[in-house]
Amino acid sequence: MTGSTFGSLFRLTSFGESHGPGVGGVVDGCPAGLDLCEADIQKELDLRRPGSAKLAGTARKESDAVRLLSGVYGGKTTGAPIAFYIANEDQRPADYNELARLFRPGHGDFAYQAKYGLRDPRGGGRSSGRETAARVAGGAIAQRLLASKSVSVHACTLEIGGIACECIDITTAWLRPYFAGDERIILAWEDRIKTVRAMGDSLGGIVRIEAHGVPLGLGEPVFGKLDALLAAALMSVGAVKGVEVGSGFTAARMLGSEHNDALLPGGRFASNNAGGVLGGISSGQNILLRASVKPIPSIAREQKTVDIEGNPATITVGGRHDICAIPRIVPVLKAMTALVLADMMLQQRRMEKT
Amino acid sequence: MTGSTFGSLFRLTSFGESHGPGVGGVVDGCPAGLDLCEADIQKELDLRRPGSAKLAGTARKESDAVRLLSGVYGGKTTGAPIAFYIANEDQRPADYNELARLFRPGHGDFAYQAKYGLRDPRGGGRSSGRETAARVAGGAIAQRLLASKSVSVHACTLEIGGIACECIDITTAWLRPYFAGDERIILAWEDRIKTVRAMGDSLGGIVRIEAHGVPLGLGEPVFGKLDALLAAALMSVGAVKGVEVGSGFTAARMLGSEHNDALLPGGRFASNNAGGVLGGISSGQNILLRASVKPIPSIAREQKTVDIEGNPATITVGGRHDICAIPRIVPVLKAMTALVLADMMLQQRRMEKT
Amino acid sequence: MTGSTFGSLFRLTSFGESHGPGVGGVVDGCPAGLDLCEADIQKELDLRRPGSAKLAGTARKESDAVRLLSGVYGGKTTGAPIAFYIANEDQRPADYNELARLFRPGHGDFAYQAKYGLRDPRGGGRSSGRETAARVAGGAIAQRLLASKSVSVHACTLEIGGIACECIDITTAWLRPYFAGDERIILAWEDRIKTVRAMGDSLGGIVRIEAHGVPLGLGEPVFGKLDALLAAALMSVGAVKGVEVGSGFTAARMLGSEHNDALLPGGRFASNNAGGVLGGISSGQNILLRASVKPIPSIAREQKTVDIEGNPATITVGGRHDICAIPRIVPVLKAMTALVLADMMLQQRRMEKT
Amino acid sequence: MTGSTFGSLFRLTSFGESHGPGVGGVVDGCPAGLDLCEADIQKELDLRRPGSAKLAGTARKESDAVRLLSGVYGGKTTGAPIAFYIANEDQRPADYNELARLFRPGHGDFAYQAKYGLRDPRGGGRSSGRETAARVAGGAIAQRLLASKSVSVHACTLEIGGIACECIDITTAWLRPYFAGDERIILAWEDRIKTVRAMGDSLGGIVRIEAHGVPLGLGEPVFGKLDALLAAALMSVGAVKGVEVGSGFTAARMLGSEHNDALLPGGRFASNNAGGVLGGISSGQNILLRASVKPIPSIAREQKTVDIEGNPATITVGGRHDICAIPRIVPVLKAMTALVLADMMLQQRRMEKT
Repeated sequence: MTGSTFGSLFRLTSFGESHGPGVGGVVDGCPAGLDLCEADIQKELDLRRPGSAKLAGTARKESDAVRLLSGVYGGKTTGAPIAFYIANEDQRPADYNELARLFRPGHGDFAYQAKYGLRDPRGGGRSSGRETAARVAGGAIAQRLLASKSVSVHACTLEIGGIACECIDITTAWLRPYFAGDERIILAWEDRIKTVRAMGDSLGGIVRIEAHGVPLGLGEPVFGKLDALLAAALMSVGAVKGVEVGSGFTAARMLGSEHNDALLPGGRFASNNAGGVLGGISSGQNILLRASVKPIPSIAREQKTVDIEGNPATITVGGRHDICAIPRIVPVLKAMTALVLADMMLQQRRMEKT
Repeated sequence: MTGSTFGSLFRLTSFGESHGPGVGGVVDGCPAGLDLCEADIQKELDLRRPGSAKLAGTARKESDAVRLLSGVYGGKTTGAPIAFYIANEDQRPADYNELARLFRPGHGDFAYQAKYGLRDPRGGGRSSGRETAARVAGGAIAQRLLASKSVSVHACTLEIGGIACECIDITTAWLRPYFAGDERIILAWEDRIKTVRAMGDSLGGIVRIEAHGVPLGLGEPVFGKLDALLAAALMSVGAVKGVEVGSGFTAARMLGSEHNDALLPGGRFASNNAGGVLGGISSGQNILLRASVKPIPSIAREQKTVDIEGNPATITVGGRHDICAIPRIVPVLKAMTALVLADMMLQQRRMEKT
Repeated sequence: MTGSTFGSLFRLTSFGESHGPGVGGVVDGCPAGLDLCEADIQKELDLRRPGSAKLAGTARKESDAVRLLSGVYGGKTTGAPIAFYIANEDQRPADYNELARLFRPGHGDFAYQAKYGLRDPRGGGRSSGRETAARVAGGAIAQRLLASKSVSVHACTLEIGGIACECIDITTAWLRPYFAGDERIILAWEDRIKTVRAMGDSLGGIVRIEAHGVPLGLGEPVFGKLDALLAAALMSVGAVKGVEVGSGFTAARMLGSEHNDALLPGGRFASNNAGGVLGGISSGQNILLRASVKPIPSIAREQKTVDIEGNPATITVGGRHDICAIPRIVPVLKAMTALVLADMMLQQRRMEKT
Repeated sequence: MTGSTFGSLFRLTSFGESHGPGVGGVVDGCPAGLDLCEADIQKELDLRRPGSAKLAGTARKESDAVRLLSGVYGGKTTGAPIAFYIANEDQRPADYNELARLFRPGHGDFAYQAKYGLRDPRGGGRSSGRETAARVAGGAIAQRLLASKSVSVHACTLEIGGIACECIDITTAWLRPYFAGDERIILAWEDRIKTVRAMGDSLGGIVRIEAHGVPLGLGEPVFGKLDALLAAALMSVGAVKGVEVGSGFTAARMLGSEHNDALLPGGRFASNNAGGVLGGISSGQNILLRASVKPIPSIAREQKTVDIEGNPATITVGGRHDICAIPRIVPVLKAMTALVLADMMLQQRRMEKT
């Protein structure tokens, strides 16, 4: 699980920069015989497009049209690697000229420069949110595999800028603005976003992800526990600073008798503090995850920084930037969850008697 | 990062059950020429022994004496795999007879049974905390490598049973009972533990881990980001339900202008909300992590459960059990952090011009 | 080293079918700062194009124009994954209609059908020699890395249809027809090829690969030995049935006193039966490899086979086929050797003291 | 497939030096519920013990008694990692004092010293044939898995010192001295060995390995082809210099019409030049492999070499050495073949519809 490849048996290799020719990926290990077409992927990509939540989103226009380059024949996967490609359309590298000389606070620029000795300054290159299009496309393929086994992944927004809501029905959240857990919160969020945008500042929030129908037995003790892989998957998405499974940080303040989920006949449980994972293995309950999303670091307010020679400087980031990674991050977190589950499902098959 | 092997270039493969002959591991990929002896590993193992915090700990007595089986010659690593072994001494499988028939709520029993179709009921087998001895031993070797580059890893307890303290000096926490962040909290924790133990119940808490001296540039975008690997490492430890990097869940409620760490000349920063990781790459600041630890599921109070045929039953877990995974989990979390950093340090070397 | 990804630290992920939109790949792990442009890759691709040896080659016309999609900025690698794409131009799926029903003897058709339950019959899909274009492109990038360390890889043809030659100067073989080891053999080969083509039959041969300037110390005992990885690399190329390192099968008939290469002062050796690898680690001598290449299985002569229902049938393979995998396989074997060496070079860096 | 871990899903991690405390390994990924006991492993280890072929073997006496440390409960595998350990008994490091200063021609000493900067001179450390005990033990576990699916692996000796025999019945070869393919060759081999031993010299040979009952569909195109993984497996064994699959080097001189194996009804073939692998995937025929084994480099005759300062020297290797790696290498090559097949069988399961 290093570099640009994610997963072991259902593997996504991603490529592409924010302002290069395009982004794409290769899914290797997908079983043959699965129905798959470009529209299956496009549907998920459209959920992360700028514009789905007008206020929070960037002004950059991308059609994000995906093209399948291999691995599908006659509408079915063949077992061969599935490559997909999304051409970048609306490149304006000129927006980024200043960034070649100044490090943006909160961004990967400084660390990338140190790591590689050079850096593609156009829109952050690989540290741009644009790379998440490949995650969403790969996750869409994973979701086709999961769907064939009646597993579904859902996500919703629980909180933006400190204003929280409940999750009323996560399975329909994709229909609501901001993928809100509860429709009634939306006006409050829009007010908050307007205010912060006017200040030239940005906002964070909290996202909930659930997987339904997950079969018992997924996860590989002791280092490939399902919750460990899910934590890595979510934390690998830029802007995520915290991850919880089930009870999460609340667990620290509970008694054992409160936290333990009593087992009931029929493989059921009286509660789900475990978040669907016991001993690192799926328990048959829903998988419950929460992720903390930091505010977008690119802000219009002036900030202190240094230039590439290390001299003090100030920076005001213009360009076309979101002021909140939510809602665009929501389908990305869903995709990462799906990638883990697809991989673990294939891992588990090997253990089965045939 | 699946199954029993952790890491890519500095890799720990772990083995052993709670009540089998012993536990051990193999570290492969450790560079040659590093000073290493059994005492280096024993020192870390001793920190996780039952008894270091009398009230919270189990009554099980283990000397946990480690033996090096390979990979070291004349007091130096040779580049060959380093195998170590810790014999189990105090096995009482009879304690676990009932467990062969009943699933313990909050434990991996139910999921293990479903995954593998059978299960070693003696003390939980691989789902027992005993496997963490191999993590600590492997982490001790990682810490020798890190120390040779002036990198150190520290951990302390911030909270037990809802009673929180500050972290006064994390580098000396290993000298304090419970690895407490602040010595003045200890009496309050002991009171709380006594009360809960008398109730037959158990407690959770929060642990902080820091890495100091981490060089710039560790981490492999986009899926092998340093924070993603650290999250997996911590979450792979039984009992951990949440992980934060730097600002963690607080980030969700901050403005971008508050959260961004301003860059200063000399590679310094005005704050460390990032927790030492920018764009998934170490920034040269201290790495800051927090983990939520759930209460021990084995409690003396009667709980509802089912037996292996699925019939309703009740269970009261006797035996020799901790009532809080803290403090024993603290050196384990430190070890996992060290394993990730050692691996990423070797990963990064490959990128360097020579 | 499974599926569509080759290597550990310098990794090629390949995709694409013979008659789909195109073939391509992603090289991940290439260090930043390396000079790289499309022409560097095109040069190698042109060596495997049909037409470079008119008699042996297929009549299919492909310009095989490669396009870089990511990972290069300002003419230098950035450390990000390098994706490349080669569109298929001359697709004639109609040629392959009969193949959807009949299994070609000596081809992967039968095994692919059994493995995946379905199969892309257009030109063999992934089992077509067309996938080797991605190997050559990836190998071209590897050769840029190797060249920056003064390592070069060379290959020549030693034998076609049982007619053998010596290898006079391997470094200039790429200039000669058939990449012949000795120019004087070419007429004999052309005669043989003409005769066999007239018979509707096909031919095999032997290829020699050498690597010069390989630093001491590459290879990872005991399972990642350099010769083991090279053997896998060559054997993974369709048509290769045997691989030798240094003395190869001759070693079986030598005495130890004949086979041992005496060490001389200055890191030199009196001979090179080892083929540049001792104990699985490069010795500083030239790496010497030989590969046996079977005759192309697609022949114009009528052959016995079965159809997809298992009924007896006969098949005569028309279409545009080579009658010998040589010379097109020669740059492919060179590329695979380069990929292994680049990977092992990065592996070895991690062991170095810094 | 690097370093000390072999395989992806059925993985062997090996450790231990020739003259340290012992050698051992960890098999991770073995499915649960398989019957396994120490005797299953011991049986295979006994086949590689010195003494099974008195003339060729070393005088070193080892009982090679294996002990299972984990992963088995009640006579069945539990799905947990299976660790095994073989203590070294007959260590005489004093035999090796001179070797700390002189490089043995044909050995890994020189390359190990260069790679790691230091070296365990006791018996070659990891480059000793002693590490193959872990391969044989791991392979014994793999063979248990294969046997549960009616797959068996066999090996025999075809040639020693240039004296070849046919393979009459490979399934009974383990009962014959030298694992000879034909009993009638044994006197000739013993004569040859006596002569060469008297000269203080050593001999090589050729080994044939077959796998019977291999299901259709194993192998992962395009880089994880079954024949590629088998080639790496065999070549990773010290002393192997060449590997052939099916027709091997003979293929280079055959016509396509001769080489192609005609398909017959019922999944049968008219011949097996393919060696059971088509397009890198098992075809359902027997897997046929051949390996060339070089003469043992440790010889009693005086040889030219250099010392660790690079000065010219001569060396005469005494100690207790085999003069031919055959027959001890035969069970090792069988084990490596079994490890690949077990891994590929688990890989293939993931593709199956469930």
